[in-house]
Amino acid sequence: MRKALVVGGAGFIGSHLCGALLAEGAKVICVDDFSLGTRENISDSRKNENFRLYEADASKEDVLEQIFDKEAPDYVFHLAANSDIQASASNPEIEYKNTYTTTFRVLSCMRRFGVSKMFFASTSAVYGDQRDVLLDENTPNLSPVSYYGAAKLGSEALINAFSYMNDIQALVFRFPNVIGPRLTHGVIYDFIRKLKKNPQRLEILGDGKQTKPYIYVSDLAEAILRFKETGRQGVSLYNVGVEGDTSVTRIADIVCEEMGLSSVQYDYTGGEGGWKGDVPRFRYCLDKIHGAGWKAVYTSDEAVRRTVREIAAGGDIHV
Amino acid sequence: MRKALVVGGAGFIGSHLCGALLAEGAKVICVDDFSLGTRENISDSRKNENFRLYEADASKEDVLEQIFDKEAPDYVFHLAANSDIQASASNPEIEYKNTYTTTFRVLSCMRRFGVSKMFFASTSAVYGDQRDVLLDENTPNLSPVSYYGAAKLGSEALINAFSYMNDIQALVFRFPNVIGPRLTHGVIYDFIRKLKKNPQRLEILGDGKQTKPYIYVSDLAEAILRFKETGRQGVSLYNVGVEGDTSVTRIADIVCEEMGLSSVQYDYTGGEGGWKGDVPRFRYCLDKIHGAGWKAVYTSDEAVRRTVREIAAGGDIHV
Repeated sequence: MRKALVVGGAGFIGSHLCGALLAEGAKVICVDDFSLGTRENISDSRKNENFRLYEADASKEDVLEQIFDKEAPDYVFHLAANSDIQASASNPEIEYKNTYTTTFRVLSCMRRFGVSKMFFASTSAVYGDQRDVLLDENTPNLSPVSYYGAAKLGSEALINAFSYMNDIQALVFRFPNVIGPRLTHGVIYDFIRKLKKNPQRLEILGDGKQTKPYIYVSDLAEAILRFKETGRQGVSLYNVGVEGDTSVTRIADIVCEEMGLSSVQYDYTGGEGGWKGDVPRFRYCLDKIHGAGWKAVYTSDEAVRRTVREIAAGGDIHV
Repeated sequence: MRKALVVGGAGFIGSHLCGALLAEGAKVICVDDFSLGTRENISDSRKNENFRLYEADASKEDVLEQIFDKEAPDYVFHLAANSDIQASASNPEIEYKNTYTTTFRVLSCMRRFGVSKMFFASTSAVYGDQRDVLLDENTPNLSPVSYYGAAKLGSEALINAFSYMNDIQALVFRFPNVIGPRLTHGVIYDFIRKLKKNPQRLEILGDGKQTKPYIYVSDLAEAILRFKETGRQGVSLYNVGVEGDTSVTRIADIVCEEMGLSSVQYDYTGGEGGWKGDVPRFRYCLDKIHGAGWKAVYTSDEAVRRTVREIAAGGDIHV
């Protein structure tokens, strides 16, 4: 790989990936519209002469075409998406534009400019609510319950067809919740924000029993780099995850511990999910990626604790 | 059902459905942009006072909203799509706009205007090339090889999410090849057109061994009407098909017989599929829909023969 195009490169995961790619010596072209990504996220990368930034909306056809034409990347990492499921629950148009259409535009440009290798950031949300199933890559009946999951599953379908029709080699990872520095939303972020405002009480959406695996972002970036050149034709799909999982109440406990707060009262809003479209728990079978020789460094609980430490210590939380 | 909105109602399948709905006494609002649909297809329906036509592009947000607002349908049949897989193979944008985006717009309008029942025309193409698998509704690893199949699978994903989030009751049929009067493209149409031009020789794409089930359009319309009010919450998904299947060479034989042509020389272009993205054969498990009490009247071969008779006799083929 000589030149990597990272679409959504100033976002939470994308910015970590840009950093890891630069550390490997790659030239990195970052495209971001700064709808969720920030300049702060890529402030270190921007000091590197191998890094170039385009502020551009990847859902717009001509914009992305100009970048492909000018830069001629040989690998595309597509991480542009709305990553805030809760936000799109009240406005599905966000997923249509930012998640599905960006994928269609990226693939159309790859087809047109003959770029034959890509990575795609998919999600556990494509499985829908199959809480009693140990989810592996061959699990049937993928029935997303969120607009986010639907747009990601639609994107996977596009990748299959474009890969077949244009001999594109695609690596697709289905992520669980990803956490770590530069997180901009989600339960950990919310708890810290709320507790900075009021250290006595904490509102918890749902019954607190929602339990999911949380992966640390550096583990994920390392996995992407490790698998990016698999040399296999077609689409290679992996569930990427960690050992263990963490309940929402356990997250609240860790946040309180790390912030040095005791006797915080938890106020549960009740119900199984935090909001409609939230999948209260899921379990991943990781045999495929473990069999390929990769394991996450941090467990789910460790990932949560590290994240809380970094975020609570920083000044980035807007109360 | 008092008032049905049929999106893509002037198309091949849509127009038969409009006719069947009117025969049941429903009010029918037909939306079509006449990209593939024709006024000829709905000439009978237009004489019925319960029929109203909007010439409109359902991929445009405001257009469809105005129609929902004005007509307040209580059931939506969504059949708008690019149905010509071969055409979109060279221009995937067609599927993005006509197949995926129309679905997103229809669902967004249903969400906004509180319409809670729908039918969606899906396809065997969502399965991809799984030629050695007896395909049932629980078959895993749906990996479309055509842009058409990808846009339909993406549409199914949208339906799952919109159904869950907005309590929409959706009936989804995965069709095999559908044939009958008003067919505008496909192998039967092509063979008749070619033989009218040159009754001595017939070019056949592929090796002629591509073998698929062909369902007669009236069988399909009847199935849609039979199942449209299942009363079940969420998404009800069925493979819809026929007994038997028909090879491309067998279709050529039937076309020649029905056109009274003997000793036509077949020129095969060779290769397994007719074009890239063509799935050369597939087999459907029909246990679910048969178990629900429905069976097609015509076998695949009978459907082909009836279609050839009607189309060869008509003056609609443009040589």
